Amino acid sequence: MKKLINNPEHVLREQLEGMAAAHPDLLKVHFEPTFIYRADAPVKNKVAVISGGGSGHEPMHGGFVGHGMLDAACPGEIFTSPTPDQMFEAAGKVHGGAGVLYIVKNYTGDVMNFEMAADMVREEGLTVQNVIIDDDVAVQDSLYTAGRRGVGTTVLAEKIVGAAAEAGYDLKKLADLCRRVNTNGRSMGMALTPCITPTSGKPSFELADNEIEIGIGIHGEPGITRSEIKPADEIVEEMTLTIIEDKPYTRYLREWDEDKGDWIEVERTDPSYKEGDTVIVFVNSMGGTPVSELYGVYRKVAEICSKKGMKISRNLIGPYITSIEMQGCSITLLKADDEMIRLFDAPVKTPALKWGI
Amino acid sequence: MKKLINNPEHVLREQLEGMAAAHPDLLKVHFEPTFIYRADAPVKNKVAVISGGGSGHEPMHGGFVGHGMLDAACPGEIFTSPTPDQMFEAAGKVHGGAGVLYIVKNYTGDVMNFEMAADMVREEGLTVQNVIIDDDVAVQDSLYTAGRRGVGTTVLAEKIVGAAAEAGYDLKKLADLCRRVNTNGRSMGMALTPCITPTSGKPSFELADNEIEIGIGIHGEPGITRSEIKPADEIVEEMTLTIIEDKPYTRYLREWDEDKGDWIEVERTDPSYKEGDTVIVFVNSMGGTPVSELYGVYRKVAEICSKKGMKISRNLIGPYITSIEMQGCSITLLKADDEMIRLFDAPVKTPALKWGI
Repeated sequence: MKKLINNPEHVLREQLEGMAAAHPDLLKVHFEPTFIYRADAPVKNKVAVISGGGSGHEPMHGGFVGHGMLDAACPGEIFTSPTPDQMFEAAGKVHGGAGVLYIVKNYTGDVMNFEMAADMVREEGLTVQNVIIDDDVAVQDSLYTAGRRGVGTTVLAEKIVGAAAEAGYDLKKLADLCRRVNTNGRSMGMALTPCITPTSGKPSFELADNEIEIGIGIHGEPGITRSEIKPADEIVEEMTLTIIEDKPYTRYLREWDEDKGDWIEVERTDPSYKEGDTVIVFVNSMGGTPVSELYGVYRKVAEICSKKGMKISRNLIGPYITSIEMQGCSITLLKADDEMIRLFDAPVKTPALKWGI
Repeated sequence: MKKLINNPEHVLREQLEGMAAAHPDLLKVHFEPTFIYRADAPVKNKVAVISGGGSGHEPMHGGFVGHGMLDAACPGEIFTSPTPDQMFEAAGKVHGGAGVLYIVKNYTGDVMNFEMAADMVREEGLTVQNVIIDDDVAVQDSLYTAGRRGVGTTVLAEKIVGAAAEAGYDLKKLADLCRRVNTNGRSMGMALTPCITPTSGKPSFELADNEIEIGIGIHGEPGITRSEIKPADEIVEEMTLTIIEDKPYTRYLREWDEDKGDWIEVERTDPSYKEGDTVIVFVNSMGGTPVSELYGVYRKVAEICSKKGMKISRNLIGPYITSIEMQGCSITLLKADDEMIRLFDAPVKTPALKWGI
C-alpha cells in the first residue's frame, strides 16, 4: 500500500487537522465526537443543513461545509457510518433556531444512525427532518444497502438545498425540495481499479489488469457487468442510457411525520426522463481518474442527451464524491426546474465548491 | 492500460471537445492549430496572457482560461511542446491591442517554440514578452530541461498575473510582476506511482511496489532520492525543508529587450526564504492522489512553516498541475507581498479556479 499517510489509525484525524488548518475562514473541526462545522455557525433563523457518512469520499461531505451549502458534516471512519452522537452534537453546535435537516445517503448504518440522532435532537425540543438520497440506478439492494444506494445526487442536493436554506426556506419547504431533488436525480458509477483502505492495506475488491466493472458503488460494492476494458464511449453510453431509460422507480422511504409525531413510510416515485427535459449533468471522478478523462466522458454524455432531446442546463465535472484513489467515474443526471437551477447557481463558499463570493 | 479514453490518437481532441461542450460560457476551442481561448476574447486594451505546454497536466493550462486568468492556452500533444503556430494564432485571436505575455514553463522545447512564436507575433507589430517559470528546486538540468524545471509556481503566476492583466497592468509591469512571482516561488514534487501516456500504453518510468521517488518532474523525470515508502510526515519534511533551505539561486534567463530589439540573457536571483516571510502554500496532487491525502500533507507543511517562523497567508490545495493519473504530490511555496496576495484573491472564473464571480 502506497499512500501519503502516517499511521493508518490516525489518518482521519490528521487529514481533518490539515483541513482545519487550511480553511479557518470557512470551517472548524470538533473532535470527540468528530464533526466539521461552519466557522460562522450558528446562523440565526436559518435551517441547519447537516450531512455525513463514512470517510473516503472526500471532498464529500466536509469539503462542502461553508456558506451556501452545509452547516456541518459528520465523518465516520473510512467507509464506516458516523455515530448518532456526532450528528447530535453537530446539530447542537450549528442550529440557528429554525430546525435541522439531515441529508442521508441510503446505507443501512447511516439511515439508522441519523434516525437515532434525529430522535435525540427532537428530545431537545428542535424540529428535524431526515431526507434519504437513493439515486444509484445500478442495483437493487447491495452490500450495505436496502434499496438503491445514495451517490452523486447527494452532492447536487447539498448544493441546491444549502442555497435554499441560505435563502430562508423553512424546514418543511427545504425537506420537500431535498426530496424533489432526490426523486429527480439518478446516478451510475464504474471502476477501472479498486481502492485500498488504509487500515486494511488491501484492495476493496479484485479486478484483473484488463477488467472494469460497471455499476459499482462508492465503497466498491458489486455492480452489474464486469468486462474487459473497452472504449470510453461504449462505457459512457451503457451508463447514460441505463440512467435515462430507467423506469419510474417506486419505493417507501422513512420520513418523520410532524403531525403524527412518528416515523412513517412514504411512497415516493422517481419519474423517468423524457424528451424535452432539462438536466444538470454531473461527471464525477472516483478519485484517481484525472479531470482530462472526465471531459472525454462529458463529451459523450452531452452527445447522448442531445440525441434524446434533453437539454443540459448546467454541469459539474470533477472529483466530488470519491472512493479514495479508485480510478473510474460516475455520471449523475438531475432533472432540474428553474428553482433548482437558480439555487444551483447561488453563491457558495466551501473548500470544494466556490463561486459567486 | 486502463483509461477512460477511446482511440489513443484522438484523446486530446475528444477531451478538448468535451471541455468546449462543458464551458461555452467561459471558453472556446480552436482546432488546426489547437488552442483554447476566452469566450469573450479579445478583451480590449488588456494585455493578453497566454500559456501552454504539453498536455497531460490538466487542468493546467486550459482549465485556467477565463476571466481573471488566461486569455488562451496552447496544448501540445501529451508531454509534448505545442508548436509556434498554435501560440501565434492564439495571440492573434485574443490580443486586445495592449500586447501579449507568454508564460512559459522551463522545458527546452517550450522555451524555443514560445520564442519563435513571440518573434512571429512581433513581426505583426504587436509587443510581446516571454516569462520563463523555473521553480523546481529538485534538480539542476533534467530530461527535457536546462536549469530548473517549471512546475507549481506556474499555476500561481497565471492566477496572479491574470488578475493583474484584468486590473489593467501594462505589459512591462505585468512581465515584471510575473518574473517576481517566479523568483519568489519554489516547488518540489514526489511520485508514489508512474503514469501511463495513452499512445505508449506504458508507465513513464518504473517504480517498485514499495518504492517512492522524491524530486520527480511532472513528466516523471528523475528526482533526487528513491526509497521505500515511508510516513507522509517524513516525505513532506524532506520536500518542504529542501524548498525552504534552498540557497539563493542565480541563473541567466532569456528575455526580450524592447529597447535593444533583441533577446538578451538577464541575471536573475531567487532569494532564500527567511523567518518572518509570508508565503502562499500550494499543495498539488499529481492526478491520482485524492484531496484527503493532500490535507494530511498540508498539515505537515503548515507545521514546518510555523516552526520556521513563516506565515502562510493563503493556500491552494487540489489537483491543478498533474501528470495524468500519477499518484503523488508537489509542494509550492511563494513568498508573496501584499500586491500578490491581493491579486491572488481577485475574482476568477475558469473551469478549474472560480471565486468572487
